[in-house]
Amino acid sequence: MIRKICVVVTSRASYCRIKTVLTEIRKHPDLKLQLVIAASALLEKYGSVLNSIKKDGFEIAAKISNVLDVENYTAAAKTTALGILELASLFENIKPDVVVSIGDRFETMSAAIAASYMNIPLAHIQGGEVTGNIDEKVRQAVTKLADIHFVATEKAKARVIQLGENPQAVFNTGCPSIDLALIATISNPCMSGECESAKRDSNEKYLVVMQHPVTTELQYASKQIQETLNAVKQLNIPTYWFCPNADPGSPEISEGIRKFDEENSNHSIRFAKNYEPLHFLKIIKDSSCLIGNSSTGIREASYLGLPVVNIGSRQAGRERGGNVIDTEFEGEKIAHAVNRQLLHGPYPSETIYGNGDAGKKIAELLAIIPFDTNKKIAY
Amino acid sequence: MIRKICVVVTSRASYCRIKTVLTEIRKHPDLKLQLVIAASALLEKYGSVLNSIKKDGFEIAAKISNVLDVENYTAAAKTTALGILELASLFENIKPDVVVSIGDRFETMSAAIAASYMNIPLAHIQGGEVTGNIDEKVRQAVTKLADIHFVATEKAKARVIQLGENPQAVFNTGCPSIDLALIATISNPCMSGECESAKRDSNEKYLVVMQHPVTTELQYASKQIQETLNAVKQLNIPTYWFCPNADPGSPEISEGIRKFDEENSNHSIRFAKNYEPLHFLKIIKDSSCLIGNSSTGIREASYLGLPVVNIGSRQAGRERGGNVIDTEFEGEKIAHAVNRQLLHGPYPSETIYGNGDAGKKIAELLAIIPFDTNKKIAY
Amino acid sequence: MIRKICVVVTSRASYCRIKTVLTEIRKHPDLKLQLVIAASALLEKYGSVLNSIKKDGFEIAAKISNVLDVENYTAAAKTTALGILELASLFENIKPDVVVSIGDRFETMSAAIAASYMNIPLAHIQGGEVTGNIDEKVRQAVTKLADIHFVATEKAKARVIQLGENPQAVFNTGCPSIDLALIATISNPCMSGECESAKRDSNEKYLVVMQHPVTTELQYASKQIQETLNAVKQLNIPTYWFCPNADPGSPEISEGIRKFDEENSNHSIRFAKNYEPLHFLKIIKDSSCLIGNSSTGIREASYLGLPVVNIGSRQAGRERGGNVIDTEFEGEKIAHAVNRQLLHGPYPSETIYGNGDAGKKIAELLAIIPFDTNKKIAY
Amino acid sequence: MIRKICVVVTSRASYCRIKTVLTEIRKHPDLKLQLVIAASALLEKYGSVLNSIKKDGFEIAAKISNVLDVENYTAAAKTTALGILELASLFENIKPDVVVSIGDRFETMSAAIAASYMNIPLAHIQGGEVTGNIDEKVRQAVTKLADIHFVATEKAKARVIQLGENPQAVFNTGCPSIDLALIATISNPCMSGECESAKRDSNEKYLVVMQHPVTTELQYASKQIQETLNAVKQLNIPTYWFCPNADPGSPEISEGIRKFDEENSNHSIRFAKNYEPLHFLKIIKDSSCLIGNSSTGIREASYLGLPVVNIGSRQAGRERGGNVIDTEFEGEKIAHAVNRQLLHGPYPSETIYGNGDAGKKIAELLAIIPFDTNKKIAY
Repeated sequence: MIRKICVVVTSRASYCRIKTVLTEIRKHPDLKLQLVIAASALLEKYGSVLNSIKKDGFEIAAKISNVLDVENYTAAAKTTALGILELASLFENIKPDVVVSIGDRFETMSAAIAASYMNIPLAHIQGGEVTGNIDEKVRQAVTKLADIHFVATEKAKARVIQLGENPQAVFNTGCPSIDLALIATISNPCMSGECESAKRDSNEKYLVVMQHPVTTELQYASKQIQETLNAVKQLNIPTYWFCPNADPGSPEISEGIRKFDEENSNHSIRFAKNYEPLHFLKIIKDSSCLIGNSSTGIREASYLGLPVVNIGSRQAGRERGGNVIDTEFEGEKIAHAVNRQLLHGPYPSETIYGNGDAGKKIAELLAIIPFDTNKKIAY
Repeated sequence: MIRKICVVVTSRASYCRIKTVLTEIRKHPDLKLQLVIAASALLEKYGSVLNSIKKDGFEIAAKISNVLDVENYTAAAKTTALGILELASLFENIKPDVVVSIGDRFETMSAAIAASYMNIPLAHIQGGEVTGNIDEKVRQAVTKLADIHFVATEKAKARVIQLGENPQAVFNTGCPSIDLALIATISNPCMSGECESAKRDSNEKYLVVMQHPVTTELQYASKQIQETLNAVKQLNIPTYWFCPNADPGSPEISEGIRKFDEENSNHSIRFAKNYEPLHFLKIIKDSSCLIGNSSTGIREASYLGLPVVNIGSRQAGRERGGNVIDTEFEGEKIAHAVNRQLLHGPYPSETIYGNGDAGKKIAELLAIIPFDTNKKIAY
Repeated sequence: MIRKICVVVTSRASYCRIKTVLTEIRKHPDLKLQLVIAASALLEKYGSVLNSIKKDGFEIAAKISNVLDVENYTAAAKTTALGILELASLFENIKPDVVVSIGDRFETMSAAIAASYMNIPLAHIQGGEVTGNIDEKVRQAVTKLADIHFVATEKAKARVIQLGENPQAVFNTGCPSIDLALIATISNPCMSGECESAKRDSNEKYLVVMQHPVTTELQYASKQIQETLNAVKQLNIPTYWFCPNADPGSPEISEGIRKFDEENSNHSIRFAKNYEPLHFLKIIKDSSCLIGNSSTGIREASYLGLPVVNIGSRQAGRERGGNVIDTEFEGEKIAHAVNRQLLHGPYPSETIYGNGDAGKKIAELLAIIPFDTNKKIAY
Repeated sequence: MIRKICVVVTSRASYCRIKTVLTEIRKHPDLKLQLVIAASALLEKYGSVLNSIKKDGFEIAAKISNVLDVENYTAAAKTTALGILELASLFENIKPDVVVSIGDRFETMSAAIAASYMNIPLAHIQGGEVTGNIDEKVRQAVTKLADIHFVATEKAKARVIQLGENPQAVFNTGCPSIDLALIATISNPCMSGECESAKRDSNEKYLVVMQHPVTTELQYASKQIQETLNAVKQLNIPTYWFCPNADPGSPEISEGIRKFDEENSNHSIRFAKNYEPLHFLKIIKDSSCLIGNSSTGIREASYLGLPVVNIGSRQAGRERGGNVIDTEFEGEKIAHAVNRQLLHGPYPSETIYGNGDAGKKIAELLAIIPFDTNKKIAY
């Protein structure tokens, strides 16, 4: 019997990360993909994934617009609540055999609650990791609602089991984001001429910045973006700067960037948002150093051997390779760390987060593992 | 500085359980109580708490009506979502210093998500226990969203710490439901003449039944209620039967009761719902045996030394005293177990779930412990 | 080009009323039906339409569960709000060319707001009538949101035009409920043996009661039901009593019926809810008198020539035939009026509300009329 | 007995318009103001009113954050639905004697539905006018839900009565926005030095632009803003440009402005949003011409005798003075019309929309008129 696998994608980042899983589910003869696009993944200003999905040829089962204006303090909670309301109805109508939720963004909770409260088996990807931020709470809580766990590292597996989950329901498949990193190293998506990287002189050095707000440190959001902007200005090297997620604190970041852009007419920064997943990874891969607090600097970068300067507390606790230098939100220290990385150059590839076959493994497991929504904490 | 303590009560059972905590918060010079009444606690058919609260003299900060018609499969998820929407606004308006959520009913998640997503410290009462049902998932997930834990037993404390919580944020205060059980043994609320128990011949034996639906076994709800009704009919002893919570499966239970009532004109069962907390406990305390799958049979009954016949999987895994006989949902077996308990009579009191000062301890801790919403899994 | 016609059905009564429209849309080569079932139409206790739809062979585009527990004072508003949230998403996903909303139940507003706010043409059936109750406000407000009007009488047409609507957008098609009444007079749905009416002795006289709460007189709901029950008890004739809609005040009515049932062991009333539309009409048609405040007594009954005793303010102002005697909520007066009708017997058929081809006319118009969402009050 | 008057303000524009009503309610001995601030009135990017309210010394009964990200097609419907959900709860908690809703913005419907569905008397300000856009539908539908009407002109009164409202419930009080215009002509709020107008050379000519999206012409939003920008660029006169409301289409307008700002380094436009109500009116009053499609150009401007160039369909049908030249969305035509107005100079004051005592009249009426929620269309 065909199993209906409902995957809920709520942001551009999640889409990039999960893409190989979607491809493998679609290919599998015993699986039927029910792809739901929700939240900021639908919004142009955060880099809508609709065009990418069109190009990638996936059929969309439903679109769910649930983002409250992020200027507001209650937005994360209300966005999640709207997601629950609409996903509950959707699940009642399309009756998935299993719901797949991804990662630790706050709105991930919508799919987790709707599915678990409706007795639909819930699979979670990227559980068992450690970070700061509300992400930490969300990730562990979703693990406690989930029935099946596809984790990315051995330590993550051990933590999920420590949380009382049945070891037979925890699978270290590696992280599907590494699958795409592998593809980026062997394919060349940039021949088409559409791609930024094709237009660059291949010898030119450049940096990439990806900085998200830290939701537990919102009072410092403006200062934090200022420090990184100062560092990049001082470094004076061409830079791709990718825009932040739809989180509390994002408007402060955008405002900081806007002001900087206004006040510095001749800077060397290019602000960007919605590149195709592979083009995005290609730009990352060919850069000299990745700066910020994105998990891309921890996951994909370890596989790509890319020098990374990781700033602040957002990724604190997450397992990492030798390619990362941690630093605080101070312009001087950031610039100093980047210069050290530029001197060092590329690192050897590490496979902490998998070796590029996570999508295939996850699809195969979804086709055969038994589903059971009744569990107890193991103790 | 006065701390504002927002307590969200979502059912009659939770109100009874938390009542001494509310009293102690109100009494404490450094605390201000913000009492929110939501969900089934507002509905007459589930035994609205509004009259009890009026008698008890608490001021209500807000009422939140969020229960979807429980006949529906999506009701639990949508009720929770509505709760998040409204609590988020409420918290924005009344700005509590800490939010207190209780137990493991599905809608408890509303307060947990609204508070944690808004960076408001979250205290959870009755974490770390083990049961079957969706309750199990909800309880552990709320623990992972909470910052402070008031648990009822030593084993519960150990489990919360195993879940990676900071041991300094986990307090074994005992369960506040035991506080009321203690009061019921030393006071006599029934002098007023209002109370059922005052009207009974004190030598007459009677049974109490409290049976809730098992949300992960909804397909058996009708059969399960049938078996217990058969057992009680066969026992033919006067019986108080308390109506179920507002859960998926409750309509099937109510329907089963209604039919039984229609078809058996001369039965000795009295169906009841909204006694005052103390009267309720008095009726429990003076009964000969408590039958069903309520946690009252596990918590309060262990302290009261009351013989209990616990049926089915709902309380499976929860720590219990010597007063409980477990049995399956079969009329014959239930009747047999009740007869064994009637022969045995009262048990010695046990203090697994505390010794009656939980409310006081919790209020004192809420007044002095430091609040911090930033945490990481300990591993 | 095929036009996608989205019809939103929110109650059993609306389904019965609209059924021939659905059939004609399905048959029409240029139309595609998108049938949405929402609100109380999904709830067993109000007579779910799902079985009827299955038998009638319609495909359901989406089910939307949005009913809040009606015990609550905010339920009507919140149920409507949930309906808007979910219909907005649905419309975004299924992109109808026109949305059809029916009648004047409060939750009708959900489809009206979702469609009009999203610039989707809105057609309204049964506008321009006059009644008491919140229905009056809802009906006229929906007219002001709608772009196309299918009304049931000439006076209704004149009123819609008086409300400033473009006369070219107002069509007197007759009421589709009359279509079914016509079918009930010429077909015999009761051969199958499933039908109640087939089991009766065809010479036996019986009454039918349909009484709904008056939402602007909720304080009298219990008294009103009591008066009608008293009248029927006194008349002592076999009676089919159809259960009320999911409105504020319905629990009081159900409670009144329950108590009556308990206290009167030998009454001749049969309480009923979810007959198939045609069986339902057959029972009405063959009865000796229809009692209560349902619009069925005004619409279908005028065509069927059925004696009707209409009680209270709910239908006040609605155009009616010679077959109706109006009375107040007093047991004596109701019984007296019924006795007068029994003496009188059947009335001649009247076609105030159409002559049985409304469904066909509406479907044909939906296929050809131009749609435009931009309008101005004519003055 | 004191009457509790709940006023729901959902945008900066509504606050300015209603301000004198709030002041008069607060002053009145028999009235108690319950001020609710909701929707875009809370968002900094649309000019939050919180600071103005603080300065004006009003107490806020509740803040309700319900704005969905306006990029989305379903946003208006969902924002309205969230408003209903939260206002229903709020009304249940604060129990107003009457709810006052203002104007015709889409989210006005939230208060109208919550109040009318809960049998709370609803007063509507600014009914009976005519425009294009979804505003037209919203305004007339709110009239049909409302029980009391405070209209601004004699024609508006006639239209509300035509809509079937009881003439005794319709009061032509004039528009309270005129009250503030009157104050702006006699007071000088700009002495404090905070005010823009105080800093200007009083002889310098300048223009004001206020252009909102036309929700029924969203496909032209970008082109429309382009045309007006071109006209203003060509006129080359110093210009205050006030940012648009939180409507579908606003992002396109903001984007158009942003691009223009980027591409034209030396333009003479100053983009502005949240001036205090009186300062805002002072700037309007002292300008040479008001350009755009705001109702300010129709209402306040007629009283101020200010030359206005009204563009497009948004105000089509609204009663206007001799001070308005209507034109289409074509840069050349707009510039031409402005030049005509500059040549003409100020017009005589007209009192179509009242003479400045609307706030006082409305407060006095709210204190004495009988409230009744039961009505029928007059025909």
